[in-house]
Amino acid sequence: MLNERTKAKLIEVVGSANFQDSSEARLVYSYDATPNFQSLPDAVIMPENKDQVKRILTICNEDHVPIVPRGSGTNLSAGTCPTQGGIVLTFNRMNKILEIDEENLTVTVQPGVITLDLINAVEAKGLFYPPDPSSMKISTIGGNINECSGGLRGLKYGVTKDYVLGLEVVLANGDCIKMGGKLAKDVAGYDLTNLFVGSEGTLGVVTEAILKLIPIPETKQTLLALFEDMDAAAKTVSAIIAHKIIPATLEFLDQPTCEVVEDFAQVGLPTDVNAVLLIEQDGPPEVVKRDIEMISRICTEGNAVSVKVAASQAEAEALSTARRSALSALARMKPTTILEDATVPRSKISEMVKAINEIAVTYNVKICTFGHAGDGNLHPTCLTDARDKEELHRVEQAFEAIFHKAIELGGTITGEHGVGEMKAPYLALKMGGEGVAAMKAIKYALDPQGIMNPGKIFAKDTRKRVVVRS
Amino acid sequence: MLNERTKAKLIEVVGSANFQDSSEARLVYSYDATPNFQSLPDAVIMPENKDQVKRILTICNEDHVPIVPRGSGTNLSAGTCPTQGGIVLTFNRMNKILEIDEENLTVTVQPGVITLDLINAVEAKGLFYPPDPSSMKISTIGGNINECSGGLRGLKYGVTKDYVLGLEVVLANGDCIKMGGKLAKDVAGYDLTNLFVGSEGTLGVVTEAILKLIPIPETKQTLLALFEDMDAAAKTVSAIIAHKIIPATLEFLDQPTCEVVEDFAQVGLPTDVNAVLLIEQDGPPEVVKRDIEMISRICTEGNAVSVKVAASQAEAEALSTARRSALSALARMKPTTILEDATVPRSKISEMVKAINEIAVTYNVKICTFGHAGDGNLHPTCLTDARDKEELHRVEQAFEAIFHKAIELGGTITGEHGVGEMKAPYLALKMGGEGVAAMKAIKYALDPQGIMNPGKIFAKDTRKRVVVRS
Repeated sequence: MLNERTKAKLIEVVGSANFQDSSEARLVYSYDATPNFQSLPDAVIMPENKDQVKRILTICNEDHVPIVPRGSGTNLSAGTCPTQGGIVLTFNRMNKILEIDEENLTVTVQPGVITLDLINAVEAKGLFYPPDPSSMKISTIGGNINECSGGLRGLKYGVTKDYVLGLEVVLANGDCIKMGGKLAKDVAGYDLTNLFVGSEGTLGVVTEAILKLIPIPETKQTLLALFEDMDAAAKTVSAIIAHKIIPATLEFLDQPTCEVVEDFAQVGLPTDVNAVLLIEQDGPPEVVKRDIEMISRICTEGNAVSVKVAASQAEAEALSTARRSALSALARMKPTTILEDATVPRSKISEMVKAINEIAVTYNVKICTFGHAGDGNLHPTCLTDARDKEELHRVEQAFEAIFHKAIELGGTITGEHGVGEMKAPYLALKMGGEGVAAMKAIKYALDPQGIMNPGKIFAKDTRKRVVVRS
Repeated sequence: MLNERTKAKLIEVVGSANFQDSSEARLVYSYDATPNFQSLPDAVIMPENKDQVKRILTICNEDHVPIVPRGSGTNLSAGTCPTQGGIVLTFNRMNKILEIDEENLTVTVQPGVITLDLINAVEAKGLFYPPDPSSMKISTIGGNINECSGGLRGLKYGVTKDYVLGLEVVLANGDCIKMGGKLAKDVAGYDLTNLFVGSEGTLGVVTEAILKLIPIPETKQTLLALFEDMDAAAKTVSAIIAHKIIPATLEFLDQPTCEVVEDFAQVGLPTDVNAVLLIEQDGPPEVVKRDIEMISRICTEGNAVSVKVAASQAEAEALSTARRSALSALARMKPTTILEDATVPRSKISEMVKAINEIAVTYNVKICTFGHAGDGNLHPTCLTDARDKEELHRVEQAFEAIFHKAIELGGTITGEHGVGEMKAPYLALKMGGEGVAAMKAIKYALDPQGIMNPGKIFAKDTRKRVVVRS
């Protein structure tokens, strides 16, 4: 618990209306979208500007109080669960789009802006902000930056880090640093901007960001290809890229996922084939037409049983929206949904999907798989029940086996969800002990007291993946 | 000087043929492309593989010997001058292209590969590695990674960091870390890859890199637009982008640069107008045609006195090559050439060019300006004589004024050349004292003894820009 002196100092900074430590408030901010890591913070604080953030961090650093910066809490790796108590810092009051600069193609935002609001605001000016995590209707840009969020358009357009040009960050000691700017090129010292993107709130608090925009693609078309077996679908993904076509979206859904999503969204997804590719291309009309024709041909040659181009923009949107709802749809099926994002080189997707299915059989657990096939970022999703300790143990073993397989294939334990607390025990699989040690050295160089989102990224001693708290 | 014991240990690692400490060898590696920072190393060492690099760094760390990793020494900020002695580490024996992976669109290389050799090797397979520093005929990929090199294609395609997917790095303590991979998405902990790109050899030694490739653009066209005044040219640059066209190349040359380059390269560059834009667009033929037509119209509307599309690929290549030769051409004019790369937001180019010209008059120095107008990365280049101390002092004052102006306009002190030792005194202008302190904390977290390229990026006490050594 916070001592009264610390509490009084924090209230002095933000006013009593913006400091909450009632049971209700603490409960609301005790979890994110990850099962089984719920934990009460000591308080929730809502700063209004950078200066308040500086003062809050200075107080917390002096008084050794953990700080957990939090967007909308859509995190899937327990990155925003206050598992060591302390203060949850929210950005509901720092949620403005400060400037859309049409000459330099940038947008300057506060961290609390909702991702989709930003996307809509820039699209109204004919500009494009590509990163589109499935949670974009509720996720914040600050959260996206902390996690380096990806999305469906990552294959062609990259992820959040590819669009962050500059950041204003408050460090644990209260120092405020501005890095980058409205600049296409900047090598003035280390690339701190990219270090902070994806640092999961463990190095400092982002208080403002300059994001890169690009001209909005003129047109887009969407295509659905159905396959009798997963292997044919995966090989088709590789074949499309090998033909030097980079689609805007190249998504994969297995049969169980299709069935659940169709039941939820009712958009006409097939439920009787083993694998579906949802492919979108955007750009100048001539190019889109040519690419979609070529992709259709490659799908057919790859033994697709059906290849269908969406007849209208409305139909295309419905398909994308349905794909984005996969997590919500799956979450209805069983009490506990654990969604992972092991990622492999694109050429290994077929092998990885096969391995996931074998692992599910070995450990007798139900895993649906969908994801961003084009960039090797799969989302094996386990439908389970956290109250069934015995099953949960098998789920944990299955995911451990999946992580090992991903690494064996040259992949990583997380493509876009972050390490958080959930995958911290597995970071060394990817980075080795020496890599983890280097990361820890950087962490403690910038946050010597360890107040910034403690317990995240770096594991203590546990090898347990799913920790059930009482 | 190295003591005999250290020398014996190093020779044991690489063999006596690959350890050189003759006066001649030391002289050859005593300078890079930056004037006035020449300084003799104690020895030069040529490792053959990662394990030798690990052993060399372990020895240097134990014996407190500075290590300066060096590509081809084309550095323009004294980043590879061994100004504190120690060992220059070269990669002539680690210069292989290890794999071109056409399925995952990656190339895996050793650091000593020449940039142009890499570009040619992947183009032979229909793939494209965009970063093209002007020095690409002799620069190495390892050097490009250490500096986060840019080039003429940066506007549309980004810079080196946008193409580094994975690195193998040896740290000062001999630890070897593999980061990233053949992965479009990877958020397993901090983004160390981007931290090392552009770290100027101050954090570790890159021993292998996985680079991203993209399909090669189908066609390209080149256009030359001439303007009576610089302001019209700069406004045209902004107008092109504001029309949502992102050309592959958008270069600017002022009249003095054109005159010197034409004298050197004889490609038909005009010498009687005040500003020239060299614009290239690439992509599918329909799009290139449409964009070039639109760009021509925008140039004409922007008061270009002449707009001419290159008649052939050969003519286009000659123009690009001439532009790339600007430094060599200018270097013939006076004994000392100091080329800078202050960078501003694109919308501020006109203001920046005007300021540079006024500063040149104020300090009575000769400055030619050319550069990557599309991304605000200008190269004001001073033709001077390092032996003339009084003039050199004015040159130094002029560049200091240019850096201040760039920062005032929201820019940076270096867009693509790095801080090195030359611009270290100005880093705080961009990053503030708190930003520099954060960078230093990271440096000493990974290199506690400070053996990695000491004296670079971080200034000691001097405010002097051009240090003339005896």
